[in-house]
Amino acid sequence: MELNEAREQLKRLQAKMSAFGHAMALIYYDGATTAPKGTAANRGQTLGILSEENYRLATGEDTVTLLEYLDTQKEALTETEARIVEVALKDIREMKKIPMEEYVAYEQLLVEADDVWHTAKETDDFELFRPLLEKIFDYQIKFASYCAPDKHPYDYCLDKYEDGLTMEKCDAFFAALRSRLVPLIQRIGAAEPLSDRCLYGDFDEGKQEAFARALMETMGIDMAHCGLGMTEHPFTTSLGSHHDVRITTNYQRDNFASSMFSVIHEGGHALYDMGSADELAYTLLDGGVSMGIHESQSRFYENLLGRSRSFISYIYPKIKECFPEEMASCTAEDVYRAVNVVTPSLIRTEADEVTYCLHVMVRYELEKRVISGELAVKDLPAEWNRLYKEYLGVDVPCDREGVLQDSHWSGGGIGYFPSYALGSAYGAQLLRRMKQEIDVEACLAEGNFAPINEWNRKHIWTFGCLKKPGVLLTEALGEEFDPYVYTDYLEKKYSELYGLA
Amino acid sequence: MELNEAREQLKRLQAKMSAFGHAMALIYYDGATTAPKGTAANRGQTLGILSEENYRLATGEDTVTLLEYLDTQKEALTETEARIVEVALKDIREMKKIPMEEYVAYEQLLVEADDVWHTAKETDDFELFRPLLEKIFDYQIKFASYCAPDKHPYDYCLDKYEDGLTMEKCDAFFAALRSRLVPLIQRIGAAEPLSDRCLYGDFDEGKQEAFARALMETMGIDMAHCGLGMTEHPFTTSLGSHHDVRITTNYQRDNFASSMFSVIHEGGHALYDMGSADELAYTLLDGGVSMGIHESQSRFYENLLGRSRSFISYIYPKIKECFPEEMASCTAEDVYRAVNVVTPSLIRTEADEVTYCLHVMVRYELEKRVISGELAVKDLPAEWNRLYKEYLGVDVPCDREGVLQDSHWSGGGIGYFPSYALGSAYGAQLLRRMKQEIDVEACLAEGNFAPINEWNRKHIWTFGCLKKPGVLLTEALGEEFDPYVYTDYLEKKYSELYGLA
Repeated sequence: MELNEAREQLKRLQAKMSAFGHAMALIYYDGATTAPKGTAANRGQTLGILSEENYRLATGEDTVTLLEYLDTQKEALTETEARIVEVALKDIREMKKIPMEEYVAYEQLLVEADDVWHTAKETDDFELFRPLLEKIFDYQIKFASYCAPDKHPYDYCLDKYEDGLTMEKCDAFFAALRSRLVPLIQRIGAAEPLSDRCLYGDFDEGKQEAFARALMETMGIDMAHCGLGMTEHPFTTSLGSHHDVRITTNYQRDNFASSMFSVIHEGGHALYDMGSADELAYTLLDGGVSMGIHESQSRFYENLLGRSRSFISYIYPKIKECFPEEMASCTAEDVYRAVNVVTPSLIRTEADEVTYCLHVMVRYELEKRVISGELAVKDLPAEWNRLYKEYLGVDVPCDREGVLQDSHWSGGGIGYFPSYALGSAYGAQLLRRMKQEIDVEACLAEGNFAPINEWNRKHIWTFGCLKKPGVLLTEALGEEFDPYVYTDYLEKKYSELYGLA
Repeated sequence: MELNEAREQLKRLQAKMSAFGHAMALIYYDGATTAPKGTAANRGQTLGILSEENYRLATGEDTVTLLEYLDTQKEALTETEARIVEVALKDIREMKKIPMEEYVAYEQLLVEADDVWHTAKETDDFELFRPLLEKIFDYQIKFASYCAPDKHPYDYCLDKYEDGLTMEKCDAFFAALRSRLVPLIQRIGAAEPLSDRCLYGDFDEGKQEAFARALMETMGIDMAHCGLGMTEHPFTTSLGSHHDVRITTNYQRDNFASSMFSVIHEGGHALYDMGSADELAYTLLDGGVSMGIHESQSRFYENLLGRSRSFISYIYPKIKECFPEEMASCTAEDVYRAVNVVTPSLIRTEADEVTYCLHVMVRYELEKRVISGELAVKDLPAEWNRLYKEYLGVDVPCDREGVLQDSHWSGGGIGYFPSYALGSAYGAQLLRRMKQEIDVEACLAEGNFAPINEWNRKHIWTFGCLKKPGVLLTEALGEEFDPYVYTDYLEKKYSELYGLA
């Protein structure tokens, strides 16, 4: 094989896989946003075929030959090419361990599961979803046994979302959080409660959408390359490359803050994806490198920036402009306090910053036990409810507001949840680092996201998947990861808010 | 090769091509409905790759070997399989005449052209669109020279949309229409004009959308498998199979009838596509057989049914329910007259039934001359305006309301327009035939589309592309096509409406 021809072939292969990725992501996005209700089977048929084609392309003999040749020529490759070869070979070696029929059947199962989960959630019917969820867990266990027979299967799941993550690391991380959060939550519980009543009213969906677009613009999101849709569960997806990204939100008629923070959260994901260097477009290095780093960006924008006093003071007049009647008697400080009320609650996506990680821990415990074979899927609802009582002190009234609330499991995202907590903690340390160079509070007070975005672009976004997540994070931080930076941040912010001694 | 294995391979090949078709149609649909503005190049990249894959699949050596083998085994195949082989071989023989690079470049050109046309129309800037339109015409001429070197290139274009259609047939057909329509239009012009002022007001888009959905349900469209979107130019598309169809409309704030008739028109296309026998799903015989037959269904629902006194009497209370204030002082008869006002006008999609075909004739003349090399693309706007003056007596104030109004040329649909006029005429004759069996007026007056839909399903829809359009039409009609049935219908209806002697 001739080197330059091989490099050309690599480029074409990457472009082809991006095209398949574009088609599959769009079919999923369509299903979640605008597709008619009865069309899931039709999408399943197409996704089954496209994922089979994609599998053949990614793991075919020609591809392996090409990559193995290029692997011997590393010195002659650019850094980007070398990393593509490295990541692709790793993926292939893993993918080839999964029989193609099972891979395709699993992809089709996820389409059906997504559809059934929606109905199950709507009708509060876990039993409807149970057989599909059992199959999803079974596939995960089976895939783990194929791909990482020496590992605990849940370590395989965790590693998929955060390179190198294990139950051991998670346990230590969550223990650190717990040691500081539980006392904080107790002290807050004993303090004078804050009110969030100014978030409630009757908020027209059209006006909420206009506000969502205004927020995206404020955040510096390039609206020519980022769309906004409406779905049951908000998410972000890239179509083909970072040149076309879509975020979604869900409008609650009685509470404008729900969509507001979903938009800022998904907007953070979008900024990260869209910030990849242009040369990475149409390669597998395009977009975010791990879910932990991804959540460090989304929860950075949502909480560290979005729920700060400086940002609320900036955005407050815009909120009033959009909802003049509902907000007539509220001050900026009212809104700041309202969006930071700490209350143990039922729904993760609406949880406050302080109790949020407890929601994640419930899911972590349950996934770990189901994957380990210690807990049956049929017992998930009861265990869910028991852990919510134990960790958060709340009674779960129905599965719809309990075990059926998240879309992750129906999408196969087992092992994903810890990324949310890790990302939150990464974000706090990134902010501390950023503040050594930038007056972040002053930027937020002026709605000027440009310097903040530039810092993130330079230290995080532009690299796409060029660096491993651990390296990327440590280099951006200039030091090792320390979960106590996050708990310090929470203690300081909420002590002031709740007037704790 | 073994016969049964070959039949299985045929099935898989068809399914794979349907999956590619699904992906490509959805990417187009996304571009027209919700994609952010700056993402056309990204879609072009993916569509280029997918169409290249699809081309390889459709014309590859394996496929040709398979089809040619099955062609020798026709007696052992089902009717459906035999027809698939016949159509696929015809397509391949044609497709193979076009070099793949040109085919792919053309597909990418169309993505760009669609985007540029939108901007050109918005900004009334034909010069922006001109270079792309020139390329599209050039490709059509080149493709005609590859595929049908013995034919006039415009005959090649016409035949693509209506099997067997030629300039000779079109000339004769349009001459027949002209001989009866021109005097009718003159007599109407001399009569007391009707008023359409009851269609005008301020119609909320949300309410128009609710009305559109109600119309679709009245028409008997299965909403679990048919979606409704919003685009600049209304269209209908199938995604993968007839199990997922999307129609689009465009809401005019000041006139509810514009979207109403777009929805009924596209709804007719959707009913036809969705009515294919289930065994045709995921084969190239799924959906409508030609644009002429397609338009015979869409314009059948839009005009022959939708603009009838019986249907308007049925739908009138629903219109009042949706727009109580705007419609307070209008009667059903006012609406019936308003939606049938005859006025020579600028915009084809909003033209009345009587002058509609003149709009088509303008496009036919212009396409014929550009393809023949008698007219340069740069001179299209001036010629367009001259012909509108000559045929319709109207002055075209700007290209936006003139040569830039339709999306067909930017989509490569040269040779498509005559189908609209032919379809209208087919529809009138189909209605006359249907009325021998069904009391259509009574059904419409009750909003009962079931018997009408069943007739169409039995005689037209269920066959998909099993029969050639000419055979399908003649068998459904039980006689030869006669354009004067259409002109008789128009003369009768409009003589009554305008009180002509």
